[in-house]
Amino acid sequence: MNNCWLGMTEEQISILYKQSNLSVVNLKSEVFWTRSANAYLLFFTKQYEIEMNERTLGGSGMPLSKEKQNKERRQRLLQCSVDLFIEKGYFNTSIRDIILRSEVGTGTFYNYFIDKEDILKALLEDFAEEIITGISQYYTVEKDLYKRFVETKQLTMDVFAQNEALSEIYSRVTGTSAPIDQCLQQFEDRLIQFYSKNIEYGIKKGVFRNVSIPPVAHSILAMEKFLLYKWIVLKAITKEEMIEMVVSFHETLSAGLLMKQ
Amino acid sequence: MNNCWLGMTEEQISILYKQSNLSVVNLKSEVFWTRSANAYLLFFTKQYEIEMNERTLGGSGMPLSKEKQNKERRQRLLQCSVDLFIEKGYFNTSIRDIILRSEVGTGTFYNYFIDKEDILKALLEDFAEEIITGISQYYTVEKDLYKRFVETKQLTMDVFAQNEALSEIYSRVTGTSAPIDQCLQQFEDRLIQFYSKNIEYGIKKGVFRNVSIPPVAHSILAMEKFLLYKWIVLKAITKEEMIEMVVSFHETLSAGLLMKQ
Repeated sequence: MNNCWLGMTEEQISILYKQSNLSVVNLKSEVFWTRSANAYLLFFTKQYEIEMNERTLGGSGMPLSKEKQNKERRQRLLQCSVDLFIEKGYFNTSIRDIILRSEVGTGTFYNYFIDKEDILKALLEDFAEEIITGISQYYTVEKDLYKRFVETKQLTMDVFAQNEALSEIYSRVTGTSAPIDQCLQQFEDRLIQFYSKNIEYGIKKGVFRNVSIPPVAHSILAMEKFLLYKWIVLKAITKEEMIEMVVSFHETLSAGLLMKQ
Repeated sequence: MNNCWLGMTEEQISILYKQSNLSVVNLKSEVFWTRSANAYLLFFTKQYEIEMNERTLGGSGMPLSKEKQNKERRQRLLQCSVDLFIEKGYFNTSIRDIILRSEVGTGTFYNYFIDKEDILKALLEDFAEEIITGISQYYTVEKDLYKRFVETKQLTMDVFAQNEALSEIYSRVTGTSAPIDQCLQQFEDRLIQFYSKNIEYGIKKGVFRNVSIPPVAHSILAMEKFLLYKWIVLKAITKEEMIEMVVSFHETLSAGLLMKQ
């Protein structure tokens, strides 16, 4: 998927990159989410202007208060979107609704986001960031790899539980359309990659057995996602039961991972 | 949920049961899925008439060919529904579409199903039945509990892979509406219960450690569901990779379950 944005070849992308002086990482990750030639061109022109302005101004190109205002506006747009997605459902919420609720101009909205999926993507990116940062901080204080493996799951589920609205959106939109699934996949792949890295570290340190990593990393997210759905959508278990079950599963799983004493 | 259909108490249900002479098991399982007083009354009257006719005729109440015809009609309705759900999506398919495609009268349709969720429920019931029967048959030839635990996962994923259309519907409709989630929950609970029973058996036999069973049973379905979604919706892995990853995960998990030698 990542190698085929809008049917362009790597070579065409490389030419665009050279013409634009854009950072190729930004170009790649952003263009991947646009999905139509028009949207792409609009976005591309806009990004080009912004980067050119920045180059002219030097540094970030804007005074600190302007930057702060931008951050706040983006945050307001994201928060209003979450509220609306919960109130009206993701599909019944229009960009018009988001613009009205957040009281910004239409042009302003498009300075920050390309479409609704772009908002979902941003929300999930921040979400993944929060989970990964939480776990990484925990790693700085806990060095026991078994404890790390089990107890970080409590941390992860706490982040899910604290972001109830976003957890519900995440649980409900799976499988409903290709652009949405792309957003989810990016979010899930990031977590799976992070989980994989930690298992790999355990194997390298000789604490875990030399098992195939991807299946184990996938099972961690699979269990988190399934119990999240049972809690927030089905309401079949409580928040506490959800966390307890995730932790208990990881205790059993880690017994299978640990080198026999 | 099972104790509260349409807000009726056990006593009210018991009175209805006596008045109707209906089998209480049928009454319970069917009424549970109706979801509105009107639908319930319609269904109830119809069922009452059918059972009364059967009693008058004796035995099943219909000649063998009639029974066969009924079975075939039900099967045709189910197959046309699956085809339409894949072609048009579950939400865009109307009961009218199903009736037209399967070339039955409107009255005939309602002899078999109450609404679209009733069809989904029937499809998933047959699906769960197929999985459980497959595993149970395997148990009659394989007595090694470790092999049972790991190799039956291959069997399960084979059933999912062979029922591609239904697997796709299952992967896509999660979390989209309360009646649908009820159908899915019934299907998933049945599998989780079956998985739990087998783990419990392993613990009783002293082969598995005395772990908390529900988290492990949930993780089995969670992993199956998540990889099914990655295969059939995201197309991020092949069918073979899906099966391989599910089996590999269960090898690691079972190492955590097995009593230390």
